[in-house]
Amino acid sequence: MTDDPEKDAARRHREKMEKRKAVQDAEVASKSIAQKGLLMVHTGPGKGKSTAAFGLALRALGHGWKIGVVQFGKGAWRTGEREMLEKLGQVAWHTLGEGFTWETQDRTRDEAAARRAWETACELMDDLAIRLLVLDELNIALRYDHLPLDEVIAKLGARRTDLHVVVTGRNAKPEMISAADLVTEMAQVKHHFSAGVKAQAGIEF
Amino acid sequence: MTDDPEKDAARRHREKMEKRKAVQDAEVASKSIAQKGLLMVHTGPGKGKSTAAFGLALRALGHGWKIGVVQFGKGAWRTGEREMLEKLGQVAWHTLGEGFTWETQDRTRDEAAARRAWETACELMDDLAIRLLVLDELNIALRYDHLPLDEVIAKLGARRTDLHVVVTGRNAKPEMISAADLVTEMAQVKHHFSAGVKAQAGIEF
Repeated sequence: MTDDPEKDAARRHREKMEKRKAVQDAEVASKSIAQKGLLMVHTGPGKGKSTAAFGLALRALGHGWKIGVVQFGKGAWRTGEREMLEKLGQVAWHTLGEGFTWETQDRTRDEAAARRAWETACELMDDLAIRLLVLDELNIALRYDHLPLDEVIAKLGARRTDLHVVVTGRNAKPEMISAADLVTEMAQVKHHFSAGVKAQAGIEF
Repeated sequence: MTDDPEKDAARRHREKMEKRKAVQDAEVASKSIAQKGLLMVHTGPGKGKSTAAFGLALRALGHGWKIGVVQFGKGAWRTGEREMLEKLGQVAWHTLGEGFTWETQDRTRDEAAARRAWETACELMDDLAIRLLVLDELNIALRYDHLPLDEVIAKLGARRTDLHVVVTGRNAKPEMISAADLVTEMAQVKHHFSAGVKAQAGIEF
């Protein structure tokens, strides 16, 4: 304690922050596995699942990596965004979904589309040049049983140690969460649709 | 009902999906506000808050928009990613944070850095060419009271109707959530740090 309350406050702040930094440094030092291809899952009802995956794609391209993208649905991302990523590096892009099942109302077609998308995903997993693979809305194909869950989980679990995979879509299966290294749930706290605002060009499409 | 259980299942599936589509179509039709610059907040302890913001930046550039980025912290995004975005269009990028307060341990410096960052944000809000402004980790500056909350909320509330703003950072203030049009909370369901895996190049930095 000194006679100067402002100095005391500054000292307390400094001490608190020093303690916090020590905790953080110890946590970083405790990690022992230096490199691991991560299976990342973005799920939950909120926005940002595919958008964050494409942010990761941007970063990966910044590292000079080749990336792969397979869209199991029609996808939140369109031709324009694909063109942007392709300007920046090597992108193997496949849109193989044909729209959500509540739009197509044809189960056989949905299953065939999911199967084609999954076969493409398997080929890209075997392409050694690819370091990041985005499987956009795979969770939705699994939720509707358009693909056998066991087969998908086994293949993802057997991926190369230098391949990162991002799986998006709400309602991730428990088996997918269990297989993943990193799972983020996007929760919707508030949405402008509730206030009568339409989907905004440039933001939502 | 028919004699064919497979046909029945297909019919039930079709009816269910038709119903779902009708609900969705009605929801879309109910929206009356055609254009509104959205205040979007990405908060919560999970990954993907800044990454989803940069995914939005990519999309905005795809629409030919000029974008602004102000980093109130040192930011999860580095020179490489900035260069990628700059290749794609007009980006006004300012990294004005000097690191988290538990690294700097100097409150006066933190406050001055936050003030500079906020003044830059205000200038960019007045630049009519900019249609999307990313205020990365503004929530953290507000949480530590490095900026007056009232001033920030008032300025954001008075933004142009064609300016979209994305605010990121955990622990968003209730006043920020109240002012926002769209709030997504990124929750951490599972993290590879807990399994002893270090931060991965190309994914986390």
